[in-house]
Amino acid sequence: MNFPKGFFANGLHCGIKKNGKKDLSIFYSEKPSVAAGVFTKNIFKAAPVIISQKNIKNKIHCIVANSGCANACTGERGIGDVKKICELTADKLNVKPENILVASTGVIGQYLPMEKIENGIRKLCLYIPPTNRPKSAVEGIMTTDTFPKVVSSTFYLLPSTRCTIWACAKGSGMIEPNLATMLSFILTDAQITKEALSRALKIATEKSFNCLTVDGDTSTNDTVFVLANGAAKNKLISDGKNFQLFCDKLTAVCIELTKMLASDGEGATKLIAINVRDAKNICDAKKIAKTVANSPLVKTAIFGNDANWGRIVAAIGRSEVMVDSKKVDVSFSNLCVFKKGCPVSFSEKIARKIILQKVVSININLNSGKEYATVYTCDFSDGYIKVNASYRT
Amino acid sequence: MNFPKGFFANGLHCGIKKNGKKDLSIFYSEKPSVAAGVFTKNIFKAAPVIISQKNIKNKIHCIVANSGCANACTGERGIGDVKKICELTADKLNVKPENILVASTGVIGQYLPMEKIENGIRKLCLYIPPTNRPKSAVEGIMTTDTFPKVVSSTFYLLPSTRCTIWACAKGSGMIEPNLATMLSFILTDAQITKEALSRALKIATEKSFNCLTVDGDTSTNDTVFVLANGAAKNKLISDGKNFQLFCDKLTAVCIELTKMLASDGEGATKLIAINVRDAKNICDAKKIAKTVANSPLVKTAIFGNDANWGRIVAAIGRSEVMVDSKKVDVSFSNLCVFKKGCPVSFSEKIARKIILQKVVSININLNSGKEYATVYTCDFSDGYIKVNASYRT
Repeated sequence: MNFPKGFFANGLHCGIKKNGKKDLSIFYSEKPSVAAGVFTKNIFKAAPVIISQKNIKNKIHCIVANSGCANACTGERGIGDVKKICELTADKLNVKPENILVASTGVIGQYLPMEKIENGIRKLCLYIPPTNRPKSAVEGIMTTDTFPKVVSSTFYLLPSTRCTIWACAKGSGMIEPNLATMLSFILTDAQITKEALSRALKIATEKSFNCLTVDGDTSTNDTVFVLANGAAKNKLISDGKNFQLFCDKLTAVCIELTKMLASDGEGATKLIAINVRDAKNICDAKKIAKTVANSPLVKTAIFGNDANWGRIVAAIGRSEVMVDSKKVDVSFSNLCVFKKGCPVSFSEKIARKIILQKVVSININLNSGKEYATVYTCDFSDGYIKVNASYRT
Repeated sequence: MNFPKGFFANGLHCGIKKNGKKDLSIFYSEKPSVAAGVFTKNIFKAAPVIISQKNIKNKIHCIVANSGCANACTGERGIGDVKKICELTADKLNVKPENILVASTGVIGQYLPMEKIENGIRKLCLYIPPTNRPKSAVEGIMTTDTFPKVVSSTFYLLPSTRCTIWACAKGSGMIEPNLATMLSFILTDAQITKEALSRALKIATEKSFNCLTVDGDTSTNDTVFVLANGAAKNKLISDGKNFQLFCDKLTAVCIELTKMLASDGEGATKLIAINVRDAKNICDAKKIAKTVANSPLVKTAIFGNDANWGRIVAAIGRSEVMVDSKKVDVSFSNLCVFKKGCPVSFSEKIARKIILQKVVSININLNSGKEYATVYTCDFSDGYIKVNASYRT
């Protein structure tokens, strides 16, 4: 997997997690990077979100991220701890505290074990660069994820400069798109203006992370960072064809991560894509898709391989979008089960075969316009209950 | 349990349910009753909802209700089937079709087995009156309910007329308050104007059924009917003290049913009451309480006896209500765990003891006003998944 030039990443176990797994990561750029970010809309923003929202206005040298403790709802002390992390990291890397971004994930309402984290940061900074272990860095931000989520895309900017976008993310509970919806860090060696990078991230997020829901819960810590260090030495991107190309590649990378996050939702056995077509506007399409995606009844039916389309129709009907109930079609993949507001007789055997797949498409056609939206989610299994009834204890 | 004068109820197995349990009920009033109802807001209204919304304008003699098939999303044929039920019942009881109300619950998207239902109606009408078996009638509307839900209240209207309100309900999945939220039939021998009855039902519903959520899913069939036949011969209620008395008793009956419905939510092991106090307005209080009540993460934590208050705070924060995060307190029963936006150190042992109870109170104080709301829900267990992954098949 290609990694962009001029970046270094590493992760280790500093002692936050009790199970000995990695829990602290840094992502470092030799050159100061242009940066953009999207953050949770939750009113109880975690301390690292509050500090990073300020620092992202500056050029960025490093992201410090930990798992196992969210440092959320921790008041002034939590804010102070993030400042200490910035100061220590800046000191060790010979940059300024305001060039550091911080992200945390894990249990809400606990203070960071600062001594452990400080020791961890000292170790990581000592060998970075030249150490570069992106895989370890990704493992360091995992919580209930069952696999690390990494995507990379290498392409040529016009006229012919090779450029790489590398991105990682962690899920996998408390996930509902309300801007950013989990932690995701995106690194690229493209040379791009801050304004163009922010615009591209906004477009990509709207079509990817904001179309994801696992359980309807928006976390206090959701964060997406993108750093662009310009090491590819392409002609500066600000608009035009290269912006479009960069934006498309970034969007594709984010959609890949989104699908990985959905398929690894807590307890998930399947990825579900809900496609709403021919809506009056994108907002309506997305609202309906999300209502269906968040219905526990739909999600448990898919887990049970049951083509219970009535639950899908009921969810559409309570989405608060004014749909014409006599125009609505519903299909599993291309098997139509509901046409113009009436049941269609279909083969339960074929329906079951479709739903037994690892990826299930629910297609809803409103026949009322030209807009569409896709939302990604997962099924709802006893595994979700198991993970979440015992997460903290 | 007291049953109001002049009403007769009975239920039987007519053959809709495969397991041989009761699936058809009638509730009959000798005299034509004043009636009021509240219905689902789902756009895909079931056929019986569409017909009953018309008929409820008239005096009512009978409610016919079935379980095992919702007769929802069944187009013109579904509507025709409801009309046939009204015609047959009216014929057998010697009243008019427009004096009949119909309600159905069960699987969406299947047609009613009309022959079985017609035979069942003939049998029920033959012996009613004098047959009066309210318990059988309540059993006839149950689906995944684990116990029948009945409440009765007898009281004296001024100056001294004995009057009874009897009410039953069925849950227990696809439940989220958006007007009425399941089936509930309320019978009273009070003499009351149609306008006063409607007003009382609206007030009672707002404080009871609309404060209930099991899984956030609003059904296509939700219906509450109240019939008042005047057999108590009290002075006609229209306003004043007797209206207030009647309204209070009706509200109390509905709140009792609501608690029963929440505690019998699919897979539920506990009743959870979420109390939001000192809000700017009732709407804010209810919105926050419902967001917390619908959070799968909160519900699984309570199932796991885990005082994971961070999930409660995160749900408050994403409720879209503008709260001052530095003023919020959270308690389990009277054990404070979060005070003015900061964690409070508390005994995990005592917290666990509180959450191990059959009824758990989550108290949220916004310290920003004087209004309050309570929402009732249940925990989220592997039982919910089991019930719903296999419901239809």
